Amino acid sequence: MMDKLTVIKVGGKIVEDAQSLDRLLGGFCDIPGFKVLVHGGGRSATKVAASLGIETTMVGGRRVTDAEMLNVVTMVYGGLVNKNIVAKLQSRGVNALGLTGADMNVMCSVRRKPVMVKAEVAGTDHDILVDYGFVGDVERCDGQMLASLIEKGVVPVMAPLTHDGLGNLLNTNADTIAGETAKALASYFDVTLIYCFEKAGVLMDEHDDDSVIRHINTASFKQFVDDGVISGGMIPKIENSLNACKAGVSKVVITKADSIGQDAGTIITV
Amino acid sequence: MMDKLTVIKVGGKIVEDAQSLDRLLGGFCDIPGFKVLVHGGGRSATKVAASLGIETTMVGGRRVTDAEMLNVVTMVYGGLVNKNIVAKLQSRGVNALGLTGADMNVMCSVRRKPVMVKAEVAGTDHDILVDYGFVGDVERCDGQMLASLIEKGVVPVMAPLTHDGLGNLLNTNADTIAGETAKALASYFDVTLIYCFEKAGVLMDEHDDDSVIRHINTASFKQFVDDGVISGGMIPKIENSLNACKAGVSKVVITKADSIGQDAGTIITV
Repeated sequence: MMDKLTVIKVGGKIVEDAQSLDRLLGGFCDIPGFKVLVHGGGRSATKVAASLGIETTMVGGRRVTDAEMLNVVTMVYGGLVNKNIVAKLQSRGVNALGLTGADMNVMCSVRRKPVMVKAEVAGTDHDILVDYGFVGDVERCDGQMLASLIEKGVVPVMAPLTHDGLGNLLNTNADTIAGETAKALASYFDVTLIYCFEKAGVLMDEHDDDSVIRHINTASFKQFVDDGVISGGMIPKIENSLNACKAGVSKVVITKADSIGQDAGTIITV
Repeated sequence: MMDKLTVIKVGGKIVEDAQSLDRLLGGFCDIPGFKVLVHGGGRSATKVAASLGIETTMVGGRRVTDAEMLNVVTMVYGGLVNKNIVAKLQSRGVNALGLTGADMNVMCSVRRKPVMVKAEVAGTDHDILVDYGFVGDVERCDGQMLASLIEKGVVPVMAPLTHDGLGNLLNTNADTIAGETAKALASYFDVTLIYCFEKAGVLMDEHDDDSVIRHINTASFKQFVDDGVISGGMIPKIENSLNACKAGVSKVVITKADSIGQDAGTIITV
């Protein structure tokens, strides 16, 4: 039987506020077994960029990353957010190691080519071709290297940055980093992937936090989509979760940051 | 016989210019055996701070690091400079891993208490009490952890940041990081410590780059100081080098960044 490992992805909103970060790290420390933390930091990046006089452009919720913005996210994700989390985890006795995909070549990606973005996603009146700039789509995650560190008691703290192997860092979606990490580690551990979310889970009624759908699998997902219960940005999130399960991840949990480690939220399995 | 390991410290001036950085990394890659790179980044930190409207205060050549400046150096040293070097080394086939002292608890330090700084050092008309802020004096470097990584082919790239074990990052002099790393690794390797310098080495005549003193040991150092050949900021630099040698480092080399790996510069031994 494989050892249990939990990959937790937490967004910028939680890691950028000192109090909510402390609560999160407390919950993270209490999770038994091996673990990995993946963090965002978009709000801080936008704030630092603004202070530097650099404008942030988002299309369909994704950041356009030109050379200046790449420097900002490298500073904020790889430095400010990552290293502060590492220092705080160390003070709690967790042997954290901050990583981008470039470190030990853990995650290699390919720069995204300009893509057509649908009008309803871009919020424009027609589909548009968008060059997201220095943004990476993950090609390979070195699960073996990560597993060998983890087995020595190291807790990877992963920033949403990868590299192209040609000397360039690339901005990479944190949800993707978490998913790819979980899949790559599934050969070595019994992996649970937790996405921290602003709501208590996937809701039957988006206005009722008590209406959490406790369990979603491939069949019920199709039904929920057909019935219009699950829609919008939640569809790709759950599709990605189901794909992670198909690739060997035992289960994906979508829950509130406050509830990690508790039996709460929505559990997704094949 | 122990394997050879080279620790190279390179200052901000070289790592912040793309061309000189590329030359340095080329030279670094050519060095045979195990190696560690320690970098500065003060000029970039000052530039980013200025762009953010944060004033840089230096006393005696050392940065005063308040909470805002700590965020800047965390971004610049731990993120921008460190991760770009790591990505560039990976593209050259070097399995680089960027580290601050907080990562895997590699280097722990204690926050410096306010210290009296002599008038001639501070450039004031009387001695002054200076609180350098979030600045760390190194207490412990985990040579065993570093050695185990290095023996697996990992090349640590160390940023001038440590932590206090209580959750705080601390700005730490890169020369000190390099010296402490070299000393901690001397139990595991035959260590050469190279300080990259703007001149060809320690000079007999500071205006003549051909007047490099090829070798300095404890006895000749005393003589050079008595004769006034070595003075000013070079004295503590060589004292620290001699101390590193006494602590087990085989030799310290002070040389130009362009000359690393060549038989050039000033060699310091006990």
